[in-house]
Amino acid sequence: MIVVKVGGSEGVDLDAVSRDAAALVRAGGQLVVVHGGSHGTNTLAEQLNHPPRFITSPSGHTSRRTDRRTLEIFQMACGLLNQSLVERLQRLGVNAVGLSGLDGRLWEGTRKEAVRSVEDGRVVIIRDDFTGTVDRVNSALLRTLLDAGLTPVLSPPGISTQGDPINVDADRAAAATAAAIGARTLLLLSNVKGLLRTFPDESSLISRVGRHEVEGVAEYAQGRMKKKVLGAGEALASGVARVIIGDARVNEPIRGALAGAGTVFE
Amino acid sequence: MIVVKVGGSEGVDLDAVSRDAAALVRAGGQLVVVHGGSHGTNTLAEQLNHPPRFITSPSGHTSRRTDRRTLEIFQMACGLLNQSLVERLQRLGVNAVGLSGLDGRLWEGTRKEAVRSVEDGRVVIIRDDFTGTVDRVNSALLRTLLDAGLTPVLSPPGISTQGDPINVDADRAAAATAAAIGARTLLLLSNVKGLLRTFPDESSLISRVGRHEVEGVAEYAQGRMKKKVLGAGEALASGVARVIIGDARVNEPIRGALAGAGTVFE
Repeated sequence: MIVVKVGGSEGVDLDAVSRDAAALVRAGGQLVVVHGGSHGTNTLAEQLNHPPRFITSPSGHTSRRTDRRTLEIFQMACGLLNQSLVERLQRLGVNAVGLSGLDGRLWEGTRKEAVRSVEDGRVVIIRDDFTGTVDRVNSALLRTLLDAGLTPVLSPPGISTQGDPINVDADRAAAATAAAIGARTLLLLSNVKGLLRTFPDESSLISRVGRHEVEGVAEYAQGRMKKKVLGAGEALASGVARVIIGDARVNEPIRGALAGAGTVFE
Repeated sequence: MIVVKVGGSEGVDLDAVSRDAAALVRAGGQLVVVHGGSHGTNTLAEQLNHPPRFITSPSGHTSRRTDRRTLEIFQMACGLLNQSLVERLQRLGVNAVGLSGLDGRLWEGTRKEAVRSVEDGRVVIIRDDFTGTVDRVNSALLRTLLDAGLTPVLSPPGISTQGDPINVDADRAAAATAAAIGARTLLLLSNVKGLLRTFPDESSLISRVGRHEVEGVAEYAQGRMKKKVLGAGEALASGVARVIIGDARVNEPIRGALAGAGTVFE
């Protein structure tokens, strides 16, 4: 069982990812696909005159300001990417089923009651943000679908215990999913070669990271790579044998990563 | 087993439909919810500067011109309504799962190869339209979900045999779904009281239509009501015992229709 998380950013070759996924399923493999929707959300939010805004926490982390309208735009962007992946996989003979974390309470977690944001040097408390983390994965639903010969394609948002949709990080949700269904391998594919010691110098790729070296290499992660390294560490700690941060811009992104291209955590 | 199709037009009370659906599920009933996305598609298409266009066929039928961009907008609008229903049901304790007709090839059918459109008095052939009809329903997938205690919430588009997404009519898709899963009752709820002999005079409501009277009353149907009467006839012919065209603007829309409000076909 493999969980493949694929980014939706520029350069990512969704056709190549889909072809590779289909080859794996045809060979008898079981697969869960996970994706986010950040890039599409930014584009759609601009088109709908509700431009993306970002929050910087007192500790320096950046996250999307997710008010209710942004949440709707996020749901539409994630949903469209989800259905474009389902369409690609169906054309390749894979019986894909798209689900969000709301469906069947697939990704249940905690909504942040108060988000702290630094604005003009002052810390402001935001209470109407729809952001949170995944605490529980409905692995029974995924098992039911997989046993029926279906390939789940999963996307944010998640759902809070109270029933609110929550913007959750797709890399970390993929890590929680891999752990919950007992996947041996988690692939985090995006438009980078892997974790780089000196971003953006691709010759500085870190090829192997031991189980106890995750915290040590986390300092090299820039921007969105931080969540991938965090997810990799969480997956390893929860029993996933191998996590690979790999490149989705190449011709055989899944087979390439499984063969050891990218940064392998094990 | 009941299939409830609910429209997304103005006046429809989705909270009331969800409350009523939840009461039914809590009482041990099994339910499949179906919805369309016409109203939301029109709004979103205007917002995204790709205004809705409609085709009139030589026989006088009107349908949406669904080019690839319109299809995407349709997918986003349907998807958002789908997730807002799933969210409402989840808050009420119903473990809802949203699916499109692409997911698991739920609604498989035929894409129209050529759409005939009357423009300035001439018949024009359109070949890049993503429109079609549902020929087969993946009832095994619906059974699997229902048996696992989940409540499916279904939405267009469907999928052609070749793997193209197709804009399908949700009333007729609901009829095909009810027939395929052996539902006894199909409810078609929208912002009208039922089939009216003299639209829009609500005192002219036709209360009962016998199995052999469907063609006779079809002449009274105006606009979108035509597809509902067509769907009602198709469902009855495929073994559904009772179809009710009812009002979704009231406080207990499902219980009201089941009690005989609206137009009952049986």
